[in-house]
Amino acid sequence: MPTEAQVRKALSEVMDPELGRNIVELGMVRDVAIEGSRVRVTLALTTMACPLKDRISDDVRAAVEALEPGLQANVQLTEMTDEERRRAFGSQAPAETVAQKASNVQRVVAVMSGKGGVGKSSVSALLAVALRRKGLRVGLLDADITGPSIPRMFGLHEPPVMGVNGMLPVESRTGIKVISINLLLPTEEEAVVWRGPLISSAIRQFWTEVVWGDLDVLILDLPPGTSDPALTVMQSLPLNGVLMVTSPQDLAGMVVRKAAALASQLKVPIIGLVENMSYVLCPDCARKVEVFGPSQAGRTAAQLGVPLLGSLPLDPELARRADVGEIEDYPAEAFQPLAEEVWARVPATKCKPMFG
Amino acid sequence: MPTEAQVRKALSEVMDPELGRNIVELGMVRDVAIEGSRVRVTLALTTMACPLKDRISDDVRAAVEALEPGLQANVQLTEMTDEERRRAFGSQAPAETVAQKASNVQRVVAVMSGKGGVGKSSVSALLAVALRRKGLRVGLLDADITGPSIPRMFGLHEPPVMGVNGMLPVESRTGIKVISINLLLPTEEEAVVWRGPLISSAIRQFWTEVVWGDLDVLILDLPPGTSDPALTVMQSLPLNGVLMVTSPQDLAGMVVRKAAALASQLKVPIIGLVENMSYVLCPDCARKVEVFGPSQAGRTAAQLGVPLLGSLPLDPELARRADVGEIEDYPAEAFQPLAEEVWARVPATKCKPMFG
Repeated sequence: MPTEAQVRKALSEVMDPELGRNIVELGMVRDVAIEGSRVRVTLALTTMACPLKDRISDDVRAAVEALEPGLQANVQLTEMTDEERRRAFGSQAPAETVAQKASNVQRVVAVMSGKGGVGKSSVSALLAVALRRKGLRVGLLDADITGPSIPRMFGLHEPPVMGVNGMLPVESRTGIKVISINLLLPTEEEAVVWRGPLISSAIRQFWTEVVWGDLDVLILDLPPGTSDPALTVMQSLPLNGVLMVTSPQDLAGMVVRKAAALASQLKVPIIGLVENMSYVLCPDCARKVEVFGPSQAGRTAAQLGVPLLGSLPLDPELARRADVGEIEDYPAEAFQPLAEEVWARVPATKCKPMFG
Repeated sequence: MPTEAQVRKALSEVMDPELGRNIVELGMVRDVAIEGSRVRVTLALTTMACPLKDRISDDVRAAVEALEPGLQANVQLTEMTDEERRRAFGSQAPAETVAQKASNVQRVVAVMSGKGGVGKSSVSALLAVALRRKGLRVGLLDADITGPSIPRMFGLHEPPVMGVNGMLPVESRTGIKVISINLLLPTEEEAVVWRGPLISSAIRQFWTEVVWGDLDVLILDLPPGTSDPALTVMQSLPLNGVLMVTSPQDLAGMVVRKAAALASQLKVPIIGLVENMSYVLCPDCARKVEVFGPSQAGRTAAQLGVPLLGSLPLDPELARRADVGEIEDYPAEAFQPLAEEVWARVPATKCKPMFG
């Protein structure tokens, strides 16, 4: 029969795959009880929504059962208290940077889809333009590191200036503050061929090292997928909510539902759903052509239990304006009510970031 | 003045960030020359296209100069010989798996874009269908782990069966062998919220642990971006070439050029460019509506120095068939010549994978 110390020693070999530190050091082992050949380990996870909880349980079981033949390990999962979480990450949680101290951002909204090419960047940009037109102070953080398109849409090319407190965002013609990796690359065709951790670190720096100043709202344009960039934004930035973008295809809806599942696992509120690319108007006969088939967005919104805030047409004029850097001149009357609707629904409280 | 041994010891603290092993152990330090306060280090990189070579040089310089005040380090870069590369990775390169031994794949083609939503999955699927119609033995590996859409397009739902040599791909109605993470998830709405290394490992396993059997061609559907999935596929699978997909927007072209830059850095040949979503035909008046603006693909292809192999319209019927799992029934006459063109241009030799 192993001693509790032996069990704890074995557990100190088990890493949290997400955090890269061992579970004992993280204070996740709340209790070890040994009765004959049965060992019961109680683990406190950072969150019950931890996507890798099965893997951690399996690793714990294997580590304990490897101690002696015949041992049977049983793992019970619970959630850390705020106090435990603070203790676990206290040493890691960096103090506010000078850039953060020099900033005061009222609301942070991530525009997300999971699916690529449904027009997240267009929706992010149009939302920024519409809220700016209302007179709000607006920032736009391009979190798409490998496929950034925000600077091109606004016709921005010059690199950000370094101020005393950190990097200063580049201002668009109407005064929207923009940061994107493409502003920092020697040419906009340069490929960023970083693996996940470097991508995550770049996104975090766009939050911690940029002097956003006083903003009513910071809009984040997320890349497709539910891997590093989305995880980083949802786990380490204080979001007020996410706006989901989809296209009429049910296939897109399926992938968007994956992204929504991630948001709810991480307890980030979904503001609503926007359907983009719903149809195109034939310039000759004004027929509404549903290029991606009939809309499935109502169904997707119902499945997610979130409001469908609007449907936007495909518009060649928008594509043209985006290509030449004139998105602020695009006559987006159709978008303004949608932006009002989104703005009215942004939750007032920020999610507490899990890390950092 | 430090001794060579001291310098080498300092260098053994420098890690290759990509490989996670130190540069001495990897055999990358080819020469150390000390003259007074100047230290010249010659490094042999796995490839001069190494995206992180500046970072490695900086780390080497810092490690050497930290040895003594006043030291000046100079780093010269060169490329490993095949022999050096074999020695460096010999111990790492896994033996062929039983699944690989039971397989014989003549050609491997990756469909890539960098940009999301331009229809990589549709192009991958239509290419598979067209080559299958020619009588070829075709496999389709869905490398989009966070946004997989291949199984839905083919109406495949049942999980793959485990055979004696590994996992057996699921066969579509016309006999295309398919593997996708969505076939392995409890429900297709499940979100895969893994960070990069787990995503890479899943993609590698789809190559090493799946019994593809005898195939004339394996088509890989890559997710958007130039991060982990694209890097893994290009660095560790024996590709014959990549097919690039773009849309008419210049903005898409910009991101596609980033992806092409990655391919050429890693010396993977680009077979050609396909423009998707070029226009939609108005069903009432047959007007060609260029929903994403006039084509920029000719210009993009010229800039990349690759042939433009064809332009495909947006077709609501394709969206419908893809949504209901009937892509094999889509009348893709327009696609067949393009598929022939692609097939004729696939290079006969495979790229040697850099790792594993």
